[in-house]
Amino acid sequence: MRLLLVNPNTSESLTALLAAAAFPAASPTTQIEAITAPRGVPYIATRADAVFGAAVAIEMLAAHHQRFDAAIIAAFGDPGLGAARELMSIPVVGLAEAGMLAACLLGRRFGIVSFAVALEPWYRECVAWHGLEGRCSGIRTLDSPFSAIGEVQHEKADLLVALAGRAIREDGADVIVLAGAPLAGLAALVRDRIDVPVVDCMAAAVKQAEMLVALDPRKPVAGTYRRPAYKESSGLDPSVAALISGK
Amino acid sequence: MRLLLVNPNTSESLTALLAAAAFPAASPTTQIEAITAPRGVPYIATRADAVFGAAVAIEMLAAHHQRFDAAIIAAFGDPGLGAARELMSIPVVGLAEAGMLAACLLGRRFGIVSFAVALEPWYRECVAWHGLEGRCSGIRTLDSPFSAIGEVQHEKADLLVALAGRAIREDGADVIVLAGAPLAGLAALVRDRIDVPVVDCMAAAVKQAEMLVALDPRKPVAGTYRRPAYKESSGLDPSVAALISGK
Amino acid sequence: MRLLLVNPNTSESLTALLAAAAFPAASPTTQIEAITAPRGVPYIATRADAVFGAAVAIEMLAAHHQRFDAAIIAAFGDPGLGAARELMSIPVVGLAEAGMLAACLLGRRFGIVSFAVALEPWYRECVAWHGLEGRCSGIRTLDSPFSAIGEVQHEKADLLVALAGRAIREDGADVIVLAGAPLAGLAALVRDRIDVPVVDCMAAAVKQAEMLVALDPRKPVAGTYRRPAYKESSGLDPSVAALISGK
Amino acid sequence: MRLLLVNPNTSESLTALLAAAAFPAASPTTQIEAITAPRGVPYIATRADAVFGAAVAIEMLAAHHQRFDAAIIAAFGDPGLGAARELMSIPVVGLAEAGMLAACLLGRRFGIVSFAVALEPWYRECVAWHGLEGRCSGIRTLDSPFSAIGEVQHEKADLLVALAGRAIREDGADVIVLAGAPLAGLAALVRDRIDVPVVDCMAAAVKQAEMLVALDPRKPVAGTYRRPAYKESSGLDPSVAALISGK
Amino acid sequence: MRLLLVNPNTSESLTALLAAAAFPAASPTTQIEAITAPRGVPYIATRADAVFGAAVAIEMLAAHHQRFDAAIIAAFGDPGLGAARELMSIPVVGLAEAGMLAACLLGRRFGIVSFAVALEPWYRECVAWHGLEGRCSGIRTLDSPFSAIGEVQHEKADLLVALAGRAIREDGADVIVLAGAPLAGLAALVRDRIDVPVVDCMAAAVKQAEMLVALDPRKPVAGTYRRPAYKESSGLDPSVAALISGK
Amino acid sequence: MRLLLVNPNTSESLTALLAAAAFPAASPTTQIEAITAPRGVPYIATRADAVFGAAVAIEMLAAHHQRFDAAIIAAFGDPGLGAARELMSIPVVGLAEAGMLAACLLGRRFGIVSFAVALEPWYRECVAWHGLEGRCSGIRTLDSPFSAIGEVQHEKADLLVALAGRAIREDGADVIVLAGAPLAGLAALVRDRIDVPVVDCMAAAVKQAEMLVALDPRKPVAGTYRRPAYKESSGLDPSVAALISGK
Repeated sequence: MRLLLVNPNTSESLTALLAAAAFPAASPTTQIEAITAPRGVPYIATRADAVFGAAVAIEMLAAHHQRFDAAIIAAFGDPGLGAARELMSIPVVGLAEAGMLAACLLGRRFGIVSFAVALEPWYRECVAWHGLEGRCSGIRTLDSPFSAIGEVQHEKADLLVALAGRAIREDGADVIVLAGAPLAGLAALVRDRIDVPVVDCMAAAVKQAEMLVALDPRKPVAGTYRRPAYKESSGLDPSVAALISGK
Repeated sequence: MRLLLVNPNTSESLTALLAAAAFPAASPTTQIEAITAPRGVPYIATRADAVFGAAVAIEMLAAHHQRFDAAIIAAFGDPGLGAARELMSIPVVGLAEAGMLAACLLGRRFGIVSFAVALEPWYRECVAWHGLEGRCSGIRTLDSPFSAIGEVQHEKADLLVALAGRAIREDGADVIVLAGAPLAGLAALVRDRIDVPVVDCMAAAVKQAEMLVALDPRKPVAGTYRRPAYKESSGLDPSVAALISGK
Repeated sequence: MRLLLVNPNTSESLTALLAAAAFPAASPTTQIEAITAPRGVPYIATRADAVFGAAVAIEMLAAHHQRFDAAIIAAFGDPGLGAARELMSIPVVGLAEAGMLAACLLGRRFGIVSFAVALEPWYRECVAWHGLEGRCSGIRTLDSPFSAIGEVQHEKADLLVALAGRAIREDGADVIVLAGAPLAGLAALVRDRIDVPVVDCMAAAVKQAEMLVALDPRKPVAGTYRRPAYKESSGLDPSVAALISGK
Repeated sequence: MRLLLVNPNTSESLTALLAAAAFPAASPTTQIEAITAPRGVPYIATRADAVFGAAVAIEMLAAHHQRFDAAIIAAFGDPGLGAARELMSIPVVGLAEAGMLAACLLGRRFGIVSFAVALEPWYRECVAWHGLEGRCSGIRTLDSPFSAIGEVQHEKADLLVALAGRAIREDGADVIVLAGAPLAGLAALVRDRIDVPVVDCMAAAVKQAEMLVALDPRKPVAGTYRRPAYKESSGLDPSVAALISGK
Repeated sequence: MRLLLVNPNTSESLTALLAAAAFPAASPTTQIEAITAPRGVPYIATRADAVFGAAVAIEMLAAHHQRFDAAIIAAFGDPGLGAARELMSIPVVGLAEAGMLAACLLGRRFGIVSFAVALEPWYRECVAWHGLEGRCSGIRTLDSPFSAIGEVQHEKADLLVALAGRAIREDGADVIVLAGAPLAGLAALVRDRIDVPVVDCMAAAVKQAEMLVALDPRKPVAGTYRRPAYKESSGLDPSVAALISGK
Repeated sequence: MRLLLVNPNTSESLTALLAAAAFPAASPTTQIEAITAPRGVPYIATRADAVFGAAVAIEMLAAHHQRFDAAIIAAFGDPGLGAARELMSIPVVGLAEAGMLAACLLGRRFGIVSFAVALEPWYRECVAWHGLEGRCSGIRTLDSPFSAIGEVQHEKADLLVALAGRAIREDGADVIVLAGAPLAGLAALVRDRIDVPVVDCMAAAVKQAEMLVALDPRKPVAGTYRRPAYKESSGLDPSVAALISGK
């Protein structure tokens, strides 16, 4: 199967991190292609960033999806995921969704741990959008500056391990979700330093995408993810306009 | 006070409808200016449409907000509302939010009534995003084609009245929210044909915006709507880029 | 429009405070008349107080409502609000309801801050009755005696500001609702000392009442706020008896 | 033990019905005294009625509680129950509460069945106040006039049995709560005609009151039902005023 | 009436404790017979223990129920309760259920206090299964070893009283449920040292069972506790096999 | 990886069906071994059946888990899943859980469709236990007898397709979960006759188990799935006793 990894952030370093975490998780027959947002912000952190990240993610999917069997939107808040499910005929998985649903298989409640306090409001809305508030013990974030987004997982590894410990002891987390594209791949490195299972969202997303392809789901023609009626638009990205208009 | 009415749909006819419903509700000292989306779809109906509607709404606000005391995003699903609250220093009100909160003052549960079945999934997510599922008795939509978006309220008035009746009798609605920019102004016309109060979202939004200006709220420097840290971007609309970067 | 401000507490000093906060918020064409409970307790603080406050509020409304376009029940727990909506043909707004719904327009979750620990149980039930638990980050109250109910907002201003700070930092409040008639008018005085928007419930109630009059809602003949069937009673206040019996 | 049965309705016929259902359920050592509301409405049916029913119930308790070990507020919506728990040093049980909690021992979800459509809004608020919405499959009421409140259970027995059947088949009720003082005693008569257990609220209330006396709970000095601080009042019923002021 | 007290733990000392707490609560006409699990663990503490406790509880009920009018499963997590309600024609009450429902009559929210940290996950699932999460202020457990399960209530009485105090002050408990068979009878001993009412689950269970017998509920033939269709099994306990097969 | 498929039903025909659905979903490097319950009922359908199914599932896992990298409890209600997670050091996946979480990736709300009305109460508790009530549009079951449990999917295929249609149109399901071991493998056969994606739980469970092995989670030493303290037991299955005692 061919799997498209859409990084809606503009940082190539994050794409590299994501790909490095994705490849080892993939089955031998899964081919992954990772692409970086052509416009937007280096790292999506807020609801405002996510508005544009969602639009860019759909543009990237519109331009490239036809060559793939499934796709992953690789930013933790899953920008544009609902829209992608409406428009695309292939399965699309969100990074946050993949990590949280994997965590549900490992514990009653998962704790979300991330590296920047700015992320919390958007992440919280993401948990709610997925209807998983009852399974989430809380969101904990570091509150100190970092040097470079591509290096934050190394720079902050010790602090993140400590934060995971607080999520376990104080919030009652049964499992830790390391959240955010910049933390892709970190779980394996800190696995033995955290008292409960740790989920790598990127690895989880690859496996969930493989599962969906194995399940061979049809494109719905009913329900809320049915293909919307074709319509005209003006001024939108040409790939998106074509997708929306069916032309 | 000066109030910006942002229509994130590209239909000028909807802007005219919205303005016509807004003006009579405004206090004598309120000046309303209505603007139409420069790009997007004629009428936002789906989650996919809303992704681009949100981006355009923020672009419109970024370009114009400085001359205003408050703004309204005048599409029922409130595209971009959270982002607007992060970025703007003036109060921003959503059309759906305004209608639903006004309805809360008139009944235990409000029924949402609209004209197209395509709207239901997006509206449902909007109700949930606002945390008002417990106050909503349900969403009912017509399921028949219409001639022109700017005329739908006249063409379908009788059917919408009948649908409101079902919302009252079968769902237990205490109050009806006529949802969607194309229905702006309809409430006054059908008021006496529906057994419970009917809320015009556009009128409600104008009054809620006036209330917020009267309350004179500060721009938060804490909480989830604090101004995000300034950051660089690439390829975004220049007004948005300036707003995000603080330059 | 003519707006009746019902203070269900027996303290004239509170009526004066409420009126002083209400008048500046009113539109030029709004005439406000404030009346004080003829019996009851100086300040409603508990569920027990509220039982009698509710009865007195309905008696006051029954006696006076016919000369008004809308009314406000000006005690934070909204005593008698549901009953008032059943019996009255004019819109009735609760002080708590008005403040909380206004706060919903300014933040994801509002923190309720008040001056006496005795109020918390009743306030909590009020939040639940309105179905707004998911929008409330918590209730925080001072726990120290005060000199006079009419002076408590001045005496405790610094402590209340500090308490609001805790609601923001520890509970995650995006906006603060200063709760209780004795705090009417305080928001404007402490606005710049609190990091998020602060809602004055009295001002919000006036604007919400104006909104309802602008929306011109009909008296429902269906739904849970329809006029109850007329019935006889014995021993009740004559105005109430007349209202209930339709005579 | 001595048990006070407070009927907050003014109908003596209901007091007789309630007493007739209560006596057989009582243990030999339980002495029940039933009293009728000296003022109010013949049968509390709405939120408006309940405001005055709550006040009268507290007045009745204030005047009589000192001679009793426990009390029951014998109207299904439990008017004044929270206030009674604050003010009284003896256990107080609500008729609705007793029936619903007994039903929880017999099924996953209970269906509430009653005789008049006017009751539904108030009953619904009562279920919510008790936090039992998740255990309630729905409320079903007859919608036809009846001859006399004291005879309604006989007149409508067949219709109520049929309605219970619908609650079971259509709503998924595991157990039926026959709601409202006028239905006291009916459960035994229709027991064999309904496919699931039927709860008589009056009998349940007697047994729950006996349980509370057996548990010998202390009057709380903490928590939300602690005795409120003594305070002055004006114009209230003398027994209530004495209770509130501690004099 | 004859009441079967099923102790699904294998500790005879717990059966003695349970019986000692049950007898004083019983009415003169109630005869209680207490039996101890013939296999399993000395004290059920975890979800794993409860799997086997549930099976053994059903086996004990299957073997003995025919001589009784009602039964109690006397372990706080109510192992096998749902299954018992399906299979048995007599009312069955759970120890946790009885304590929690009694507590609902005494406060808005109950705090669960117990003696071992291992119990918390299972207890939490029990609260959720009963749909009482909204009425529970939290679960607090001691985290120190004890000498003998039959003596833990005496050994830890002071610590449990202190823990109850924290549940009241920090969690907002209105009432304390002392949870777990090893704490049966403790409530009466510490009643005056805790600021809110304390519920003894064993005493509550006896009274609830008496209530159910007084209500004389029929065995449902509809709803989720109807008798399952008879079926064959293999390798199960003979009493259970007979019950399942109807032979 | 080596994957243990535990069928807690005693029907060999179901084991064959489950295995036939599992094998095609497995990666080339996954070896699956399927075992059948040595005691219990042919098909677990009720809460009572599940009590014994849970015990047997743990016995089967205790006896065999050491040779495997992961295990699946292959009955839709996931009997014993929580206990298995406590006791086992390998990941354990439930059939219901796997299907429901896979469905979450394909739609807002999933509809559960099964073949026997007896299953509904137990399935409903399973959905609640997983905290997925908000993602479930409802459970629909056939209500007619069938010939043989191993043939039910063929015999009832048309009726199940029709039932799925009702779940989509009347309940708003975005995706259908065909529930119950007897339906394993049916999804592929009816895929094109249902308007939304259909999830085969057995296939989903295999892929979820592969995902968990890929994520390489540690056995928790904290949280609610930490290994319980070792303890003695009496009369339990020797493998279980050894697991519980650590000997």
